[in-house]
Parts: sequence; structure tokens; C-alpha cells
Amino acid sequence: MKLATLRNGRPDGQLVVVSGDLTRCVSAGKIAPHLQAALDTWETSAPALAELSRALNSGAIAAQAFDPGLALAPLPRAYSWIDGSGYLSHLERVRTLAGSKDAELQSARPLLYQGGSDSLLGATEPILVSDDSLAVDFEAEIAVITGPVLMRATRAEAAAEIRLITVCNDVSLRRLVADDLQNGFGFFHSKPSTAFGPVVATPDEFGTAWHDNKLHLKLRVTVNDAFFGQPDAGVDMHFDFADLIAAASETRRLIAGTIVGSGTVTNRHDEVPPIKRDGIGFSCIAEARAVEKLKYGKARTPFLKEGDRVTIAIVDSAGTPVVGSIDQRVALYQR
Amino acid sequence: MKLATLRNGRPDGQLVVVSGDLTRCVSAGKIAPHLQAALDTWETSAPALAELSRALNSGAIAAQAFDPGLALAPLPRAYSWIDGSGYLSHLERVRTLAGSKDAELQSARPLLYQGGSDSLLGATEPILVSDDSLAVDFEAEIAVITGPVLMRATRAEAAAEIRLITVCNDVSLRRLVADDLQNGFGFFHSKPSTAFGPVVATPDEFGTAWHDNKLHLKLRVTVNDAFFGQPDAGVDMHFDFADLIAAASETRRLIAGTIVGSGTVTNRHDEVPPIKRDGIGFSCIAEARAVEKLKYGKARTPFLKEGDRVTIAIVDSAGTPVVGSIDQRVALYQR
Repeated sequence: MKLATLRNGRPDGQLVVVSGDLTRCVSAGKIAPHLQAALDTWETSAPALAELSRALNSGAIAAQAFDPGLALAPLPRAYSWIDGSGYLSHLERVRTLAGSKDAELQSARPLLYQGGSDSLLGATEPILVSDDSLAVDFEAEIAVITGPVLMRATRAEAAAEIRLITVCNDVSLRRLVADDLQNGFGFFHSKPSTAFGPVVATPDEFGTAWHDNKLHLKLRVTVNDAFFGQPDAGVDMHFDFADLIAAASETRRLIAGTIVGSGTVTNRHDEVPPIKRDGIGFSCIAEARAVEKLKYGKARTPFLKEGDRVTIAIVDSAGTPVVGSIDQRVALYQR
Repeated sequence: MKLATLRNGRPDGQLVVVSGDLTRCVSAGKIAPHLQAALDTWETSAPALAELSRALNSGAIAAQAFDPGLALAPLPRAYSWIDGSGYLSHLERVRTLAGSKDAELQSARPLLYQGGSDSLLGATEPILVSDDSLAVDFEAEIAVITGPVLMRATRAEAAAEIRLITVCNDVSLRRLVADDLQNGFGFFHSKPSTAFGPVVATPDEFGTAWHDNKLHLKLRVTVNDAFFGQPDAGVDMHFDFADLIAAASETRRLIAGTIVGSGTVTNRHDEVPPIKRDGIGFSCIAEARAVEKLKYGKARTPFLKEGDRVTIAIVDSAGTPVVGSIDQRVALYQR
């Protein structure tokens, strides 16, 4: 089934079930008022939501048009947003950038950070920055929402708690990253609100593309309507979602509704922008700039400025977005 | 008014109003089912809670005994737990320890980290660790719960959103701190669930002890029933709560229910353990060990082991806990 959270004036929004083709939706209010409530009662709510989904998809019930512009983040305020670093080549590339920390790459254990989770953005909400000279970047990622995970969960236990999958944009202010890392307290100011796809889907909605705790589909990215990348999220994922979730539970339990990010999806290749239409490309600007610096001695791809647009979508083999598209513009924050 | 969250089998517990002397309480269920709901509707819920508090304290209504052993964390699952570093002398002392990062001290801007907020501990819940050789430590802090804070809030705006005050224990696994800091992604495994006092109180409950966005009361700490410290939380707080909250809002807004910690409360002094009963002492073991190393060439105070007990309380001038006591033991986690 596919679910979304629609704006209704309340902090947690309104839970709806969305049709497989993303055109129609129906309120799930009789089952759970919002997604966190559904996750809190998943054993009973999930079968009821699945039944509602079947009725919606078969045309047996009345439905309304699904407007992704009305979607909040699936969990507009979540209790935990943990971003991993599943794709080592992202760090390999980005850490060649001036100002980044010259840390030893970790291939034995995944890096994780606790992100701010109290104000997550819907798919079409603007990226608000006070100053667009902060080197505004996006990071295209896969995110999963889990059930409750015991402390020191095994990989199998972690995998069993993957309930929902979507796409996210881990917005990064690169000029502030180096400061945050230098402080030693981790990302804080450099990571404003993360944005999420308009729809979340259970693993079965991805068919055979979901296996081995990875999503074997392309993540298509455009910047200002120009093709930017389409790495395969199933390729070069060194730490899969079971690894990331299990690692996150090393010293504490995770509750239902925990969001875990894959880290920036990146495939190893030697392309340099501009990326050809059949190329792999990049899921963030920092990586593109890093390879440009190596090749040309100078980064060419600019960071995002006011009004710039980024779209990110998980696409199936036909190129169709499975959980809709993130479609954001950068806007200057004004008090 | 004073509030608490009692265990009722649900994730968010039951909101109660507690009497000023902490002996009695009454359900606030008719006003808000739980504290987050009250914070979401503070403009209407706060006056209603205050009226209930007056009725309780005047003896006008029936009440039940308040048992802090039944208290969950005020927000058992919170959307944001941001820990600051208001007291510079904590970092000054701790960073002399082997394995800590030799970073330049920040006196111009406060350090902040985003803590895990999905499974916060009640005042008497055990500190669960898989292995008590991880250098288990406590950190006694003041914590405030805020209303909504705009992005780039001023100090005055930040101060105006301080709604509730309590005490907390930012449990730290010192053996994992160095690893977390080296990774550059910040504290993660080294900070298991933080524990909070059984009661939260509005600033007015502290009378003149709350001013200049600091709490001018002692934080009394015992370890295994022996006196460990009683630093004054109003002394040597370089960054006050308005500074910490405003800094936290630099690149993103904060929602109602955000918890902000003061950092380990520390006063500058040259005492070395054992601390005399009229001494100032320490609010964490790492600082005591750091000064022991400097004085004796070797740390003497052991970290916490299975069964060890730590108590932490904000006390008034008569030595009475204002929001109750954190009273935790270390327990080994078993699957």
C-alpha cells in the first residue's frame, strides 16, 4: 500500500491511502488520524490500511484526486531521523573537498548522525535559507520508516522492522559543514529541515526491486529541469538498511516511526559534468564539484541559489516515479 | 505549576498536575491527554492547567498521592532533544582526558548536538547498558522545554518560549565518545537514552531563582549515596538558555516540545575528590577523573558499574528538591 499525509492545519496532518498510480486517495481517518498513530498500532492498522488500499485500487470506493502539492512530510514531526552513510563513495568524493574533515573512511561500521526531526518538509515545500551563499546543496537518498527496534538488534530483526520506504532530500549547507565537523558535536546548523517524498510505500509495492534490504531502482535527479543523475540505489550500497538500523540500535532502542536514511545515493563511475542523458551522474552538488576540481582544477557546478529547483524521484524501469517526486525550490527566509 | 507524566501503558503517558510540595497530583486528562498535546495547545491549555494547579494546591479538589516511581520522562518521546554546552569549564576539564578531541574551545558560539529523543527515560528508570566496561557516566544538567521558536530567533524571542524547566541526566558512554567524535558525525552510540526529572515546572515556580535565563539553584548529585557535587547552575553558565535556544534556531525553526539542555553544570574551582560536604564537586565522573589525573597522575573515581546508583536534584535554599530527584541505577541489558 501507499500512504501520504495531507495538510489539514494540524501538526501531524491527515493520513490518506493513495492509489498505486498516485492519482487518487482516500482518508484513512477511521483507522488512524495520522501516520505516527498508524505506526503505533501497526499490527491492527496495517491490515486495515491494506484492505482500504485494495478497495481504493479496485475502484470499489469513492476517492478524491491525490495532489502531491498538499502533501506534508509523511511524518511532519518525527521522533527520530537517523541518517546513515550506506554509500562509501559519497564520503570518498566529498571528503576530497577543501574544508571537509580528512577522516579515515569507515568501511567496517556505518557512520550515523541524529538529524533534527521536528520540522520535516513536504515534497514541494521550499528549502528556506537565510542566505543563499551558504553553499546550499541537496542530497538524494532513500529513507525507510521502521517499527520498534530492540537495543542491539540483529540484522534480521532490523530488516523485519522496515515498514515503509520513500525518498528524501537531506538538505545541506556546505559552508557550515566544516564548522560543524570541527566542533566535534556533529552536523547541526549545516543540516536544516530534510524533505521527504509525497508518498510512502510498503516494501511489497516495489516488487522484486526491493531485496537484500536495498532498493534496486534508480534515483532520478534534476536541477533547474536539467538532468543531474540517476544512480541505482541498489548498487554500491556498502551498508544496507539492515546494517544501518542494527547499527543505530547499538546502545539504545528505536521506537516505531524512526526514519533511517541511506546516505547520499552514489554509484562509482568516472563521469564529470555535464552528465550525458544515459550517464549515472550525481545525487548532490558537492560530489559533482569534487570530481570537477580533480579534472579541471576548479569546481564548475554552482550550489543552489534562490529560485533554483531540484527534483528527486525513485523511478521504476519505465521511468515512472513510484512514490512521487520531491520538487523543491530554494527560497530566502524572511522574518 | 508543576506537571508530570505518569505511566499508563501508552507511549506518551498521562499528564498530571503535581502539587507544589510534590506529594499529590491530579489528572489533567480533561485539558490534554499528554504533555505534548498540552504544549501543542499551550495558549488554552496553560491557563487551564494553572487553574487546576491552584485548585490542587488549595486543597479544593480530591487528589491522589504523587509517586515519582510511576513517572515517565515528561516527554517520553520528544520530537527534539538538543543538548547545549553552556558551561565552558566542562569542556575545559573533559577535553584534557586522553582520547578526547583536542578541539579549540568555543567561547563565541555554543556547541549543540542533536540527541536521540525517541526513548527518553523516567527519573527512576535504569540506565541500561550492554556492557558496564564502556565507562558509564552521568551528566547532571538543567533542561527546558520550549514553545515554537522561529528560525533565527533573537535572544528575547528564545527566552519568551521557555515554558518548563526540569533536571536531566545526559548518560554518556565515555569509551564510545572518542570514536563518535573521530567519525565527525557527532555523538551517537556514546549517548544512550537521557533521563529526566519526575516533574517539570514553569519558571515562576522557581521564584527569584530563575532570572537572566539561568536557574540560580544548586544541582545536588550523589553517587552510591555519597555526596558528589552541588554546583550552582546559575554560576559560570557562559551561554544562558536564551543563547542556546537562539543558536539552535540558526538554520531551522524549533517546534513546541523541543527540549534544550544546559550542558553539564560545572562551576570553576580547584577541588579534587573526595569532595567535602560543603564543597562544590562535580556533575559528572569524567571531570572528577580529569582533575585527579592532573593532581595524582591517575584517575581514581571509577565510572559507574552494574548496580551503581546516581541521584540528581535541583534543590532550593533549604535543600529540598524542586522538581523531584533523578534516582537511577545502572543495569545490564539482556536480550
